[in-house]
Amino acid sequence: MELVKAGIVGASGYSGLELIRLLLGHPEVEIETIVSPSNAGFKLNEVFPHLTNIQNCEFDALDVNDLASKVDVVFFATPAGISSQSIPSLIEMGIPCIDLSGDFRLKGNGLYEEWYNHSSPPAQVLEQAVYGLSEFYPEEIANANLIANPGCYPTASLLGILPIIQQDWVDPSSLIIDGKSGLSGAGRKTSLAAHFSEVNENVSAYKLGKHQHIPEIEQLLSMQIEKEIQVTFATHLIPLTRGMMCSMYMNLLTEKTTNQVIELYQSFYENHPFIRIMPEGKWPTPKGVAGSNYCDIGFSVDDRTNRITVISVIDNLMKGAAGQAVQNMNLRFGFAETEGLMLSPVFP
Amino acid sequence: MELVKAGIVGASGYSGLELIRLLLGHPEVEIETIVSPSNAGFKLNEVFPHLTNIQNCEFDALDVNDLASKVDVVFFATPAGISSQSIPSLIEMGIPCIDLSGDFRLKGNGLYEEWYNHSSPPAQVLEQAVYGLSEFYPEEIANANLIANPGCYPTASLLGILPIIQQDWVDPSSLIIDGKSGLSGAGRKTSLAAHFSEVNENVSAYKLGKHQHIPEIEQLLSMQIEKEIQVTFATHLIPLTRGMMCSMYMNLLTEKTTNQVIELYQSFYENHPFIRIMPEGKWPTPKGVAGSNYCDIGFSVDDRTNRITVISVIDNLMKGAAGQAVQNMNLRFGFAETEGLMLSPVFP
Amino acid sequence: MELVKAGIVGASGYSGLELIRLLLGHPEVEIETIVSPSNAGFKLNEVFPHLTNIQNCEFDALDVNDLASKVDVVFFATPAGISSQSIPSLIEMGIPCIDLSGDFRLKGNGLYEEWYNHSSPPAQVLEQAVYGLSEFYPEEIANANLIANPGCYPTASLLGILPIIQQDWVDPSSLIIDGKSGLSGAGRKTSLAAHFSEVNENVSAYKLGKHQHIPEIEQLLSMQIEKEIQVTFATHLIPLTRGMMCSMYMNLLTEKTTNQVIELYQSFYENHPFIRIMPEGKWPTPKGVAGSNYCDIGFSVDDRTNRITVISVIDNLMKGAAGQAVQNMNLRFGFAETEGLMLSPVFP
Amino acid sequence: MELVKAGIVGASGYSGLELIRLLLGHPEVEIETIVSPSNAGFKLNEVFPHLTNIQNCEFDALDVNDLASKVDVVFFATPAGISSQSIPSLIEMGIPCIDLSGDFRLKGNGLYEEWYNHSSPPAQVLEQAVYGLSEFYPEEIANANLIANPGCYPTASLLGILPIIQQDWVDPSSLIIDGKSGLSGAGRKTSLAAHFSEVNENVSAYKLGKHQHIPEIEQLLSMQIEKEIQVTFATHLIPLTRGMMCSMYMNLLTEKTTNQVIELYQSFYENHPFIRIMPEGKWPTPKGVAGSNYCDIGFSVDDRTNRITVISVIDNLMKGAAGQAVQNMNLRFGFAETEGLMLSPVFP
Repeated sequence: MELVKAGIVGASGYSGLELIRLLLGHPEVEIETIVSPSNAGFKLNEVFPHLTNIQNCEFDALDVNDLASKVDVVFFATPAGISSQSIPSLIEMGIPCIDLSGDFRLKGNGLYEEWYNHSSPPAQVLEQAVYGLSEFYPEEIANANLIANPGCYPTASLLGILPIIQQDWVDPSSLIIDGKSGLSGAGRKTSLAAHFSEVNENVSAYKLGKHQHIPEIEQLLSMQIEKEIQVTFATHLIPLTRGMMCSMYMNLLTEKTTNQVIELYQSFYENHPFIRIMPEGKWPTPKGVAGSNYCDIGFSVDDRTNRITVISVIDNLMKGAAGQAVQNMNLRFGFAETEGLMLSPVFP
Repeated sequence: MELVKAGIVGASGYSGLELIRLLLGHPEVEIETIVSPSNAGFKLNEVFPHLTNIQNCEFDALDVNDLASKVDVVFFATPAGISSQSIPSLIEMGIPCIDLSGDFRLKGNGLYEEWYNHSSPPAQVLEQAVYGLSEFYPEEIANANLIANPGCYPTASLLGILPIIQQDWVDPSSLIIDGKSGLSGAGRKTSLAAHFSEVNENVSAYKLGKHQHIPEIEQLLSMQIEKEIQVTFATHLIPLTRGMMCSMYMNLLTEKTTNQVIELYQSFYENHPFIRIMPEGKWPTPKGVAGSNYCDIGFSVDDRTNRITVISVIDNLMKGAAGQAVQNMNLRFGFAETEGLMLSPVFP
Repeated sequence: MELVKAGIVGASGYSGLELIRLLLGHPEVEIETIVSPSNAGFKLNEVFPHLTNIQNCEFDALDVNDLASKVDVVFFATPAGISSQSIPSLIEMGIPCIDLSGDFRLKGNGLYEEWYNHSSPPAQVLEQAVYGLSEFYPEEIANANLIANPGCYPTASLLGILPIIQQDWVDPSSLIIDGKSGLSGAGRKTSLAAHFSEVNENVSAYKLGKHQHIPEIEQLLSMQIEKEIQVTFATHLIPLTRGMMCSMYMNLLTEKTTNQVIELYQSFYENHPFIRIMPEGKWPTPKGVAGSNYCDIGFSVDDRTNRITVISVIDNLMKGAAGQAVQNMNLRFGFAETEGLMLSPVFP
Repeated sequence: MELVKAGIVGASGYSGLELIRLLLGHPEVEIETIVSPSNAGFKLNEVFPHLTNIQNCEFDALDVNDLASKVDVVFFATPAGISSQSIPSLIEMGIPCIDLSGDFRLKGNGLYEEWYNHSSPPAQVLEQAVYGLSEFYPEEIANANLIANPGCYPTASLLGILPIIQQDWVDPSSLIIDGKSGLSGAGRKTSLAAHFSEVNENVSAYKLGKHQHIPEIEQLLSMQIEKEIQVTFATHLIPLTRGMMCSMYMNLLTEKTTNQVIELYQSFYENHPFIRIMPEGKWPTPKGVAGSNYCDIGFSVDDRTNRITVISVIDNLMKGAAGQAVQNMNLRFGFAETEGLMLSPVFP
């Protein structure tokens, strides 16, 4: 059988590199081209010596027509404002696109401009975009030509709270998300905020009340429960390279034990191999999912305050970016959802 | 003038070591004896080479009478259940004690047994204990012979929320505290939870709903606003040695801007040199207080959700333990509050 | 075709866990039993939640006869002094054993006792042991029933220096090895030396002149060049979980440029897919091989001092332990050398 | 008595910040002006919030005449090529200068151009510069108007090897230095090489054979033993913020035990309070000197190879930069050598 030919645009960032790692191990796909305007003409292993002898090719410049003539699917792992310039042509030429950037995630009027400070993608293209939260929209993804791959924080938080919110056990307006992310989520761009001497032995809150993942989370919640929801979402950089934890707090509307919540989630995610529910008294850690596509979720019901704490962790470059993108590609091309993704966590 | 002679019990733990560092630089105090039953007879610099040529003495065993005959003040930097065995005799002999453990912090009936799993200290001694949150109880501390030095999390969180809670601008029952601590807060005992290979590149929630600092925070809040309060408090270990951040979330009862909150705090803490308020749009970091006695506090009011986020940071071994203990000793002995504590943060 | 059934003894240590990760992805092997006396009866995922839903089994106790009846190959990932008690019976029963411990590595009289402080394994078993440095002894490994998998430092250093030493371009007696290892190499045992608060923001020299890998390196060197060699080998713990670098210094006997050395190594390792040679002016890093079986090697000839510096890096749990063990199993069972090991480095 | 007025040029880098920290605690000095062309006009605490309420001033632009009119001493903590433009005028105006950059360290003809790639400072100024290795040139420093403060690696390595080299117990031409430095030594400039995601969980060799500290070390060695010496010096970045270790290897010319070496050093450094010698079997660590001005040195004689290993550690921003600069200022102004520097290490 012929392999699916993939192109990766933005291959020199961390999510692009993770796509290369995953597609190299995928039995149904081959990497046809890697695109990076800033590195065009350089050999991959000159820029990334860790890929020496593994993938021998050069970075290409971005040429949409050339791309369309060579590949069966394009992944965009680009900063905001880039993919929306190329994707309209590509899907018009019939090339399915999986976009890891935020360009096609926000449907609401003016939301993208407001939170991203870029101009909106064309409305008729935007409406074709399917939100790629794999466990919730598998059929839509299977039929989409434009998949807006979720952000890392929205993935970790939505997988952790949607089951209980859908069940009406909690007050969704009470939701507070305390997000903790490693540095790779902020990309490979140099800045003082990413300087080792300032990150190491430190933790910092950032973009409080202003993070572009806020409207993404709210949009999904509102869609799922058909009610407008506003959430408090505070993000923190912690001194790790990979890994993300969302600690989430909600008021219970009804008396439940931690075990009842665990049973709800186990049943909800029964047929979803990448979601793992922790037993009572144990909470998941980023190290437990490092390098893998798992999302691990744990719970603590506090009957003194009548609140529930949900802890959800992912590897931000895997389930939070490249891993989920490959999962979506699997759904779209009819492969097993887990194809190329059955990687055990790298522990310790 | 004669120097105050200090004894440090539990001098081989991290808080004890920090007391040694601080008292060595204190112009009004000399270290008379360091006590560590497990290290008795060993030279300090055999166990801690970093103190070679700085403090040449041996660890003593714990002998309360001997201690009382030699010193003017005793610091206890011991695990739970230790200080309550010696302090009653010491204060009866007229020796003021500053206890960095939790033994004398909880006043409520049975609270200590419930949360610490040790038997309560004698009631008539407990009632003499003053809670050593320096900025809030300076006069009580000045007159106390038994100072219960606050826990690290209670220090960071209470300093961050009491001003606004006292002002009735927020609903205290909505309070959620997401605590993030470096590893030194957990002490020098070896365990898998402190093993470098498992802590590094990781973050972990622990003791959710069960942390012994919960009743301590609640007790103070309830005292200050004369109402029973229950809080949600979730603690996380992050991969740093020193440093602590409490991210705190509350519902506003009245419309306020971030700047109004900043002004409230600036005015409230005007005469308190160790509390620093961040300007709008900036939030404090543990690295900004490392090695110093400062508590830095920043704010974000979100008018979309009508909630306020307060970020409060300390060095857990300084303002969260030894630094505040020295501050309390200064208050008790009539020295300037900042004596021996005007150390700039060690940055980076 | 039937899968090879593997047993892993010492499955609860870091090397054992890495074997589980690798064998789960190996198309020709299945894990038949995992043995850990201290965890016998516990489910794997109770002890290691990161393996939940991936491998569902219990730890077994160690029973040599039972083991022999169930498996085709046994890996020992045990502390010194353990494997030598079980391996004699197993190989007598015809079960090939791959020993990741040091028990069967040292051939010299009394060497094992001297450096490991345990009594020697039986001489007639020891003489059957083949040293499993895959790139150097592939044929011996293919025919061995007892493979002594090399230590992590010896793997990194020998792969880095043997080609140039065999070529007589350097004076082997001038060899100085400065080894730098992450903490996982020291295992999962708790100790102050592995306590996060003491390892983080630190680096420490240890076992200077006394490390048990010294005689292992010397033995191999002496075998290869048929001359007794003594080396200076200084080991340092650096604050990372995985990864090892050996910086090695030797006096050149003849004038060579860095590029001549690079060509020598490229030619020497031409058919060895796991060895990668860095171009001039670039040196390898542990992050470039993390989670993979590669050994990357770089060089710097200094014509001012007439010395060469060789930098060799591996992931100590992969090429330095489990990865090379699987590579040796592949050689022994006639699989492609790279089977199950074509994992790209996890970067960053 | 009047305080010495100090100016700090390059106050926004890590060494400049450390000078501010030290001078704030120095009883004989006040900071009169902090200069940073790129931050001129900004308040110190806008750029460095950790100094809020501690030092309230603005950054000044660099104006040599203005500087000379205001201060009694100037510290330069600037990149290469800057101080040599201002220092000639300042010392002509009679203002003593302490230069933490490398501009005035190399005396040899053309050496500075060769290794720094900048043009040499004027010869007649250069010849006035005294090399500020405090323990070796106290009298010269006391009488100098231009003190070339040593580099961090030269400080750690020279203090570790000069006593034994002067004693003729080792062959100086056999010297190999394996240097390991935290990231703060590379300054606050952003770069991929300082990006947290690439530094964390990694170690990297850099500038092998090309580091600008090589001629500085060689020049001092040659001066001390009156013989031209070339050394092998290999530098490595390790994932810590502060701290430096030099592991040094030399061939013994005569049979000595580790304890004989220890006695030599103890005697040599008897009256030097910042040098501490470790007992046999213990080696120093950067954490043991963090935040302090100590240099700790340990030894291991290997009678198998007839080599000695010397381990020397410093805090690169203290004894390796700002700490030694203040020590030199003390010598120059006739204060006690330890004035303002008796800070205990911040441990852990």
